[in-house]
Amino acid sequence: MATDNTLTIAGIQQRCFTDKKRSWKQTEQHIQTAVAQGAELIVLQELHATQYFCQIESTDFFDLAEPIDGPTFHFLSQQAKQHQVVIVGSIFERRAPGLYHNTAIVLERDGSLAGFYRKMHIPDDPGFYEKFYFTPGDYTETQGFHPIDTSVGRLGVLVCWDQWYPEAARLMALRGADMLIYPTAIGWDPSDDTEEQNRQLDAWIIVQRGHSVANNLPVISMNRVGHEPDPSKQSQGIEFWGNSFMTGPQGEFLQQAQHQEETVLIAHLDRKRCEQVRRIWPYFRDRRVDAFKELSARYLDAKKNL
Amino acid sequence: MATDNTLTIAGIQQRCFTDKKRSWKQTEQHIQTAVAQGAELIVLQELHATQYFCQIESTDFFDLAEPIDGPTFHFLSQQAKQHQVVIVGSIFERRAPGLYHNTAIVLERDGSLAGFYRKMHIPDDPGFYEKFYFTPGDYTETQGFHPIDTSVGRLGVLVCWDQWYPEAARLMALRGADMLIYPTAIGWDPSDDTEEQNRQLDAWIIVQRGHSVANNLPVISMNRVGHEPDPSKQSQGIEFWGNSFMTGPQGEFLQQAQHQEETVLIAHLDRKRCEQVRRIWPYFRDRRVDAFKELSARYLDAKKNL
Repeated sequence: MATDNTLTIAGIQQRCFTDKKRSWKQTEQHIQTAVAQGAELIVLQELHATQYFCQIESTDFFDLAEPIDGPTFHFLSQQAKQHQVVIVGSIFERRAPGLYHNTAIVLERDGSLAGFYRKMHIPDDPGFYEKFYFTPGDYTETQGFHPIDTSVGRLGVLVCWDQWYPEAARLMALRGADMLIYPTAIGWDPSDDTEEQNRQLDAWIIVQRGHSVANNLPVISMNRVGHEPDPSKQSQGIEFWGNSFMTGPQGEFLQQAQHQEETVLIAHLDRKRCEQVRRIWPYFRDRRVDAFKELSARYLDAKKNL
Repeated sequence: MATDNTLTIAGIQQRCFTDKKRSWKQTEQHIQTAVAQGAELIVLQELHATQYFCQIESTDFFDLAEPIDGPTFHFLSQQAKQHQVVIVGSIFERRAPGLYHNTAIVLERDGSLAGFYRKMHIPDDPGFYEKFYFTPGDYTETQGFHPIDTSVGRLGVLVCWDQWYPEAARLMALRGADMLIYPTAIGWDPSDDTEEQNRQLDAWIIVQRGHSVANNLPVISMNRVGHEPDPSKQSQGIEFWGNSFMTGPQGEFLQQAQHQEETVLIAHLDRKRCEQVRRIWPYFRDRRVDAFKELSARYLDAKKNL
């Protein structure tokens, strides 16, 4: 199946449980399916070890957090080593008392930690109270929008809310990412009407395919699936919309999941094609880097002298 | 039709001719159709007064260039004033001997020049030899990615190749653009197979809808249609692919044209909805502006110490 120029990528879209061991068990079965199909890289969704606890703000949920080399790392490390695959996972990271992150971890084939990425953009909306739980990732010489080198390529790992920001995708591309990877947990408010739900789902797909096109890079976006109730019972909970997908470097779909089923997506990425697309569509040649300074501004109110 | 919160926008997708007067005549008829349907803003495609001369490099074609206040300006000015509409047009601008631009001009309802935008990103591909003809627009305090204020709103006018650059769209949004407008001339190489042609067309639509989503802004993208032969007869010419479209602020299609027909697209834009979408999806709240400095880099080779 795999040749020198082809990389077999698997993505796991699953339901999650309050009990980490039960979630891991589910993930383990899907990893076996992926490995049986020749996967060399396996991408999991955001916070795959637990239900999405950010529906309410409760200090009790900080008990779910673990250090980077905690139990979820050990589970994934063992899986990576056993199957000789690279795994992109996601944890609720306890960095220090009172200091927590939403962190993607990347395991090398030998089970070692290839690198980690702390979610830089943190959302906060009704039912998604992430600013209560997660400190945004640091911006340093090695942390922030830095891809992670692995034996299957340089992985531009970002997390969920980051996916709405073209700046994040671009910085990963400028730092040599071979692909963009988005572990995600996004869903519908069941009280929205179908038209609005469809617009939201479409927008989520479009903006990420847009990053694929603008950077001539494959995108792997893996999302949660299934309904999770609101512990406070004040809302109807979240219907995680699945629809995980993978694109080639022109934003073209390689695979796409449905909105309700657990799925193992498999794609065979043609690396030669990725290089070729950059030759045909040479966006990087022409960027007006002399005129981009103001991208670092919050907003440009100059005309009104504010 | 139009209410205080609604703006009626028309876009014209047409064939063009070597003779400017014939092209203007065609445009004039479409403007009448647009006005009859209540258009308050009319968007034309790129270089609508002539055929797309950039298929070959010939100094003779510089004869087609005109100053900003030249004959195409006068034609559009008269149309704007007669119908009391704002018009976005496009010219091959002669700024000085040996200095030419690809320039969008915006006419106010009274026929005056509201502003102009000189294409910042200039492509160069076989059949699209634009770097021979057009100097990239300047980056100054008033020129570059600056929207243009008009009686129908602040227009983020960009041109064609700019549409592949998220940075350009973002800078327009940060400067308060109410919508993004892309006059365009893009088409297929008839020698490409259908699958590749479809990927290219899809990528072109996706990346612009992506800007719409990422900035919560409507996008109006008007493209040329029809086959134009290669004057050198070395290629099969260009099949301009039409497919002009308009989106609302979630990237949702409001209108989309077909790939062969001349068309006047009409959309009724709900301005209140645009504001509401920014409240629901507050991307501007969370941008990591502290971590965006390197967007001004050509490429970030740090890991290899290059």
